[in-house]
Formats: sequence, structure tokens, C-alpha cells
Amino acid sequence: MLNYYYHDKPFKLELGGELPELTIAYHTYGQINEARDNIVWVCHALTGNSDVPDWWPGTVEKGGFLDPAKYFVICANFIGSPYGTTCPMHTNPNTGKPYYRDFPRYTMRDIVSAHRLLADKLGIGHIKVLVGCSVGGFQAVEWAVEEPDRADKLILMATDVKASPWTIAIDETQRMAILSDPTYFEDRPDGGSKGLAAARAIALLTYRGGKSYNLTQQDDDENYVHPLHRACTYQQYQGKKLVDRFDAYSYMAILQSFDTHNIGRGRGGVTRALGRIKAETIVVGLTTDIVFTPDDMRQLARKIPHASYYEIHSPFGHDGFLVETQQLNDLLIPWMEKQ
Amino acid sequence: MLNYYYHDKPFKLELGGELPELTIAYHTYGQINEARDNIVWVCHALTGNSDVPDWWPGTVEKGGFLDPAKYFVICANFIGSPYGTTCPMHTNPNTGKPYYRDFPRYTMRDIVSAHRLLADKLGIGHIKVLVGCSVGGFQAVEWAVEEPDRADKLILMATDVKASPWTIAIDETQRMAILSDPTYFEDRPDGGSKGLAAARAIALLTYRGGKSYNLTQQDDDENYVHPLHRACTYQQYQGKKLVDRFDAYSYMAILQSFDTHNIGRGRGGVTRALGRIKAETIVVGLTTDIVFTPDDMRQLARKIPHASYYEIHSPFGHDGFLVETQQLNDLLIPWMEKQ
Repeated sequence: MLNYYYHDKPFKLELGGELPELTIAYHTYGQINEARDNIVWVCHALTGNSDVPDWWPGTVEKGGFLDPAKYFVICANFIGSPYGTTCPMHTNPNTGKPYYRDFPRYTMRDIVSAHRLLADKLGIGHIKVLVGCSVGGFQAVEWAVEEPDRADKLILMATDVKASPWTIAIDETQRMAILSDPTYFEDRPDGGSKGLAAARAIALLTYRGGKSYNLTQQDDDENYVHPLHRACTYQQYQGKKLVDRFDAYSYMAILQSFDTHNIGRGRGGVTRALGRIKAETIVVGLTTDIVFTPDDMRQLARKIPHASYYEIHSPFGHDGFLVETQQLNDLLIPWMEKQ
Repeated sequence: MLNYYYHDKPFKLELGGELPELTIAYHTYGQINEARDNIVWVCHALTGNSDVPDWWPGTVEKGGFLDPAKYFVICANFIGSPYGTTCPMHTNPNTGKPYYRDFPRYTMRDIVSAHRLLADKLGIGHIKVLVGCSVGGFQAVEWAVEEPDRADKLILMATDVKASPWTIAIDETQRMAILSDPTYFEDRPDGGSKGLAAARAIALLTYRGGKSYNLTQQDDDENYVHPLHRACTYQQYQGKKLVDRFDAYSYMAILQSFDTHNIGRGRGGVTRALGRIKAETIVVGLTTDIVFTPDDMRQLARKIPHASYYEIHSPFGHDGFLVETQQLNDLLIPWMEKQ
């Protein structure tokens, strides 16, 4: 069920700015039990939303590891994302016009602060399991470091504790594509659409990786010389699909916040920050992920006090976490139930 | 030494069009010996040129595997590339204006036909070693299949026998970035420059890969929240560097020809085509290459009749072939000399 929380006071941001007001969109599934020990908080990824079953089918259902008959599942749309929470397309109360390019700069920590604000307003004290994949994992690990006593368990999948030079380079390249489209500078609802489509196509390359394209986008006819290869129409299609559901201003704002992710900032570095985590942690890597590689994920697991590492076999690269839900459910259902 | 061959007749193209005239720029190093058995033909990669030591330092020199004291080394700039050979920035004799977007569509086979034309005009009969890395390998393998008796030995490094869906997707994404820049449609020397810079940044992501960025572009200060991460300035710098030496029209033309690569077309498929190769072949993979993976290269070596496989260890991804020249020289000097 979609809900909104309206915070009608200024929301201070880490980099010095503020949002004059903050709306937070969130979904919940299932009920909090009497012991209040069945709360699962899911953090969504880059272009996701708070409606978990919408982007993660096979999880919030009977037989899924987020079964709403067992758990109270909550997910909040993060700051800057155009799925209900305050974002660049919302009206800036100070000007009466949409923010567009004037949305204040914010960090991954601001996103987590908004989650904490919502959790407190809803009276959610203790969380049983905090879940994050990809940019969702950025939020989950930041939260687990900032409030080590909040969650009993932590699921970190295909993610990182700090935006790496590699992922920042991927983001910058997407920005270059968006800024190649001069309509972005016109501050209009469809500004930068062509650039946004190209940016999404860039991201898809990194999310899917070579094996996935070669598996699913082979041309039927070996004699095919026309430029309309399946891989071309696939990239065009994926670009258009995002343009139809997103906007370039929110996308740029989110990329900017992505790059600020660093749990070690002001905490004596990443390793010390990870040492603060009290939650029992499972780190999950994907065999063909080129964004957050299995090697990186194994190393991450070694640095967290109470962590184990598991690998999901998938040819679908980083996007494997959205596809291999059978493997995930098999892995996570017993792990979540174990005392 | 830079030379030009002027072919003042129409040059027919595989897809039905023609170039009204064809200039081919080429470099040679060293001398042909009396036995005429020391000729090495190098095919250059996507944005390369015919001046091999310019883009491949450490090879065409004493101690390099292309030592000009031993070998006569020749490299021709390919059709569509803006380093002297007929390309979209040249004047179309039929209109008196540059081709820009009207450059006729051509294939990897047309590029090889132009190499053969030049070889014949220069009286180069037999080639001792045919060398190609990346798109250079596209040309080399196509040539070795088309004329199995031309070369004794064949070096194929980080390349493929057919443009894969993965590489075509990478190309299409670059096209999307270029076409996001409306100045491309204005047919002017700097048309599409911003898009071209973004396209180059996309290509760099795939050429370098995660390990390379994380090794070379770490930010000095962990507390750094500003958007000017080193990875950002690196991407911007690489984009600008290409814009300063290339143009969007030639780049688009070359991407189009890249996607046509398929040695199996009209030859009963890739495996049968590979069976035609008579040259003793060495296939070289790079440990961290995500464009042409070591797995892909190993499989390729198995399909070529007289082929061996070697792997170069490098954190620099696909671009490792430009960096790890010490390893390459150690591997290739004895291999080239062996009878």
C-alpha cells in the first residue's frame, strides 16, 4: 500500500543546503506482529521505487523471502527519486516552480536520515532485517553503520561501502551523455530525454554485461549486415522505457548522491566504520556482476564483524539480483528465520 | 614514413554503394629483404592510425617484436578513419562538399579489400605475419579467411570473428550519445562533439574496466564529497582528447563498419570460415578484458586449425594490449622467429 509522510519543516542536508519541505512516499506489506520483531526494511536501487513487488517480483509473496504473511515489509522512496518522495520535478515552495536543475545537492547519508525520520515517525523502533541491493545496499550499510543497534540482520547484495572510481566513472559518463542533450538546460518536463535514454543504455551495459547480451540478443541470421541488430533495438528500447517512467533531472540528482557514498567519511575510514556494524550480515555476490564484482563482495564480507558470503550464479550480471529470485529465496528464507 | 596511394577509380562497396575515389594513407618501417620474407602487416584498431609507434610504443623499435631492423612493417589507415584515408571529412567529388553523414555504408570486408588493393599495388605478395588487436584483429582474421595463402602467421589479440551482441550494444550506446547532440545533424566540422566525448567515455569504460579505474583513479581524500572525483575528470579528459583528434562523422562511420564484422557471412558460418585459415595462429587474451574476454579468446583459439592460446596478465582491461608491451615482446619475438 502506498502512503505518504509529509514533513512540513525544512530538512537539513549534509552538504549545507536544505529542502524547504519533504514528502516521503513509502509502501508497506503485511502487519507488524505483537512482539514487533518481524519488521523488514528494504532499500531500493537507483531507478526503483517503494513498491517492492513492482521491481522485485517473486520476493514479497508466499514462498518469497519477504513473505508478507510472516513479515511487515516497508520500503521508502528515496530523496530525489520521482516516485512520490520530494524530487527535482516537485514544486519548490520558495519559487512556485519545479526544482529541475536547482534541486539542492544531497548525499547518501541524507537519504538514510530521511529513512530514519520516517521510521521514527511511524514508531518503528527495532528492525529485524535491513535489506539492500546495489544502491539499496549503499543505504542499508550506511544505516547499519550510523545506527548499529537498529537492525538485527543485514542483507547486502551486489553493493559497496563507498562509490568506487569505477562506479563514479560510469556515473560521470552518463552525465556526459545527458549534458550532450541541450534540452536538459531548458528546464522542462522532458528536458534531456535523448541524453537520458543514452545514459540508461550506458547503465544497462554495466548492469547486464557481455554474457547476458550474448545470451539474449544474438541475431537470428548470420548474414545480417543491417544496422538493426537485436542488441541495437534492445538498447533503444531500454532507453525509451526509462524515459517513459523517469526524468533527466531526478536521474542527475540521484547520480550525484550516488557518488557521495562513503561510509568511512568522518568515521576514520571505511574499515573502522564497518567495524561498528553489530547486525549479523550476509553479503551476496553475483558471479557475472562487473559493477560490484564477486571479488569485491568477498573482500567486503571479510571486513564486516559478523558476516558470511554467498554467491548467486547468474549470467545476467548485476541485474542477476532481480532475476535469480529462486536462488535468493532458497538462500535467504532460512537465513532470515534462523535465531 | 607516411605515404599515400591514390586509387582514382570508384571503389565498389559490399553493401552496394561505392566511393567515387579512394585515398589510402599508410606507413612503412624498415626494408623488405632480398628473400621478401620479412613483411609484417599490422591492422590498427578503432581510433588508431597507420603510424604504429604512435599508438603502440615499445613495439616498432629495437627490442620490440616489430623491430624495423628485422622486419618491413606496414600499416594502412582504414576506410572511414580520419588519418589520411578517405573518410567522412573528405570532399565528396560528386558534390564538392565533405561527406559528413552521407558517407556510404561500408563493411569490415571493404576495409580488407582496400588493404589487399594496397598490398597488390605495392607488389607485396606474401606476408610473413599479419597482426591485429581489437578491431585490428577483425581485419586480420577476415583477411586470413579471405586469402588463406597470403600470410604465414597470424597474431589475433583481444578480438573476435564476429561483432557480438555485447560489442554491438556498446556501439549502439555510443551512437545514442552522439545522436543526443543535435549539432551532429548540422554537418559541420565540429558537429556532435559533445556526443562524441560522451561516446568515447563510454568506450573507455569498456576498454579499461573496473580494476583499472580502481587502481588509477582513487581519490586521495576519503572525505571528498565534491563531484570532482578523479574518475570524473578522467572521463572528461579522455572525451576531450578524442574530440581534439577525431570527428563524430568518421566515428559513426567506423562504428557502423564494426557492426558488420562477421567472417561467417556467405561462408557457411563462423566455424567453417575459421577452418579456412592456413596461417599458424597465436591468439592472445588479456586477463581483465571485459570486451573480448579471456574465455572468448580461448574458445576462439580452439576453433582455428593451427592455433595456440596465450594470456597477458594486466589490470588494464582491453587496453592492456597497448600497455603490456614487455609481456607482448617476450611472447611474440620468439614466436615470430620460430620456423
